[in-house]
Amino acid sequence: MNTPELANSVRLTGDAVEILDRRVYPFQRIWVRCTTSDEVAQAIRDMVTQSSGPLFATTAAMVLAARSVRHRPRDLALADLRAAGDRLVATRPTNNHIRDAVHAILAELRDLGEGDLAEEVERAARAHDEAYRTRSAALGRHAADLLPDGATVLTHCWADYYLIATVQATQEQGKHLEFVCTETRPYLQGARLTAATLVEMGYEPTLITDGMVAAALADGVADVALVAADRVTLDGHVINKVGTLGVALAANFAGRPFYALVQRPDPQAPTPEDVVIEHRDPDEVLHVLGRRTAADGVTGHYPAFDTTPPDLVTRIVTEKGAFRPENVKEAI
Amino acid sequence: MNTPELANSVRLTGDAVEILDRRVYPFQRIWVRCTTSDEVAQAIRDMVTQSSGPLFATTAAMVLAARSVRHRPRDLALADLRAAGDRLVATRPTNNHIRDAVHAILAELRDLGEGDLAEEVERAARAHDEAYRTRSAALGRHAADLLPDGATVLTHCWADYYLIATVQATQEQGKHLEFVCTETRPYLQGARLTAATLVEMGYEPTLITDGMVAAALADGVADVALVAADRVTLDGHVINKVGTLGVALAANFAGRPFYALVQRPDPQAPTPEDVVIEHRDPDEVLHVLGRRTAADGVTGHYPAFDTTPPDLVTRIVTEKGAFRPENVKEAI
Repeated sequence: MNTPELANSVRLTGDAVEILDRRVYPFQRIWVRCTTSDEVAQAIRDMVTQSSGPLFATTAAMVLAARSVRHRPRDLALADLRAAGDRLVATRPTNNHIRDAVHAILAELRDLGEGDLAEEVERAARAHDEAYRTRSAALGRHAADLLPDGATVLTHCWADYYLIATVQATQEQGKHLEFVCTETRPYLQGARLTAATLVEMGYEPTLITDGMVAAALADGVADVALVAADRVTLDGHVINKVGTLGVALAANFAGRPFYALVQRPDPQAPTPEDVVIEHRDPDEVLHVLGRRTAADGVTGHYPAFDTTPPDLVTRIVTEKGAFRPENVKEAI
Repeated sequence: MNTPELANSVRLTGDAVEILDRRVYPFQRIWVRCTTSDEVAQAIRDMVTQSSGPLFATTAAMVLAARSVRHRPRDLALADLRAAGDRLVATRPTNNHIRDAVHAILAELRDLGEGDLAEEVERAARAHDEAYRTRSAALGRHAADLLPDGATVLTHCWADYYLIATVQATQEQGKHLEFVCTETRPYLQGARLTAATLVEMGYEPTLITDGMVAAALADGVADVALVAADRVTLDGHVINKVGTLGVALAANFAGRPFYALVQRPDPQAPTPEDVVIEHRDPDEVLHVLGRRTAADGVTGHYPAFDTTPPDLVTRIVTEKGAFRPENVKEAI
């Protein structure tokens, strides 16, 4: 089975965290080297990595932070570690991977004695990474169960581990799929990350612009819509890359299923009002890969995520199975 | 009142038709010079001009064709002219401007005597151009009546004369509008043509990517959706730039009006089955302004238009007024 390059895009070395730069992938393979947790935070803020990348970057950053304070008194070292964690959590507000990773590592330390802090954090970080991969694999098997052999799956943005796990599970089940990917402006995650990874995994994906989603689903060019979710609320709202609401509306209009993938809903987010929608640099809308594409005198507007209400969602696929959105809190 | 540059983007000279190249506008002002009607047809096929540009390019091309055969016997000259017209009509199948312009000019000649063919065609061409502008102005006044003072109007693609006329009419009515424009990939008509023209007309448009339409309408960033139609069928379907269906679905979801502008429905198209949806070069989806934006191993898919059913359309605004889609055939 192919393990695509983006499945291992964060490396912890003896003195640094190296992050594959998703801003230029797959056109260039550049690894951004960070020697402090604050450099990792800056890299996350600058979108060097995204989707599940920040989770692995965060656990690795916590190891860097622990190494830098390992010789301080434990209470002071733990305070430094909490502060480093807070700065990582502050980088991006909508997805809860970073918050949960920091909390999981800090919680692990509370139950431990006075061993070497860096080693303890590294163990906790590895365990958190591994658990994330294991839960993604479970999610992928549940998602694969919903996809019929021969389906053409429309993706939006880049569903990262969830997509990789789903595709691997369909391959284990002997199902043949085809893929239609939106390019996902402004950052082109679909054209670059999803498409490149599906090619690595043996497919020949078809690319459409973000405006072609409704036509593709209505005309039968694709027959299932499958997206990740950055956050799912306990009342079944799906918060994901901007454009997802349009995909859900189109699937609903065309009578096609709309599936959203998330390991579990966020117990800290009962409703969409509990989720901060990140707005990013509006200039990104005015450029493509750094080149100006808009007329002078124009201002950009860049909400990074949108909110899809439960009645447009066919199933939310979690590590515990596929749920109707109104029942998704059972997945906690 | 400002007359923006794109309102006069085709020039007939003594020996050529000069067409403002919309593929690079507004970053470059290049006029493509065509000395035969077939060169004009090629320019239309290559998207040097689009929207209402092909209409003016076609009438001018018919003048060029008439000049080249003016000294032949009239029946042979007319046959040549018809053939030139057929080649122009064949360039782009979805919009009916080209077909109607060719037919109008040829019909005019049938009623004339044995005068100078080139002068007759030039008169008929001018009359057709002028009538198009007059009908667009009427349409614009009807559209302006629907737009409340203070509205923020979401545009998709480039509605050309219809948009210019609508904006001018709102200015005459003393209404203040704001605009949110989709960039409209792959060709970026919104980011380049619509945005540049609105700036010329005194506005500061906000640009969004095509995937942000549903969020913009749901979040109140825009409160009216306004698009042109390349074709409206007698049963009220709106065929327009791909992405329009998604705009209509989003407006419907958000409870916002969706208005489509067309001088009149096509009497030759009772239903959408009577309209050919053009597919363009899939490579355009894999590039932005000529630069590769997609991973290797990917295939593009590029339906240039999509079809919005009547139940998603609030009003179709014609030269004769605004109609509910089920009544649009009254506008003929």
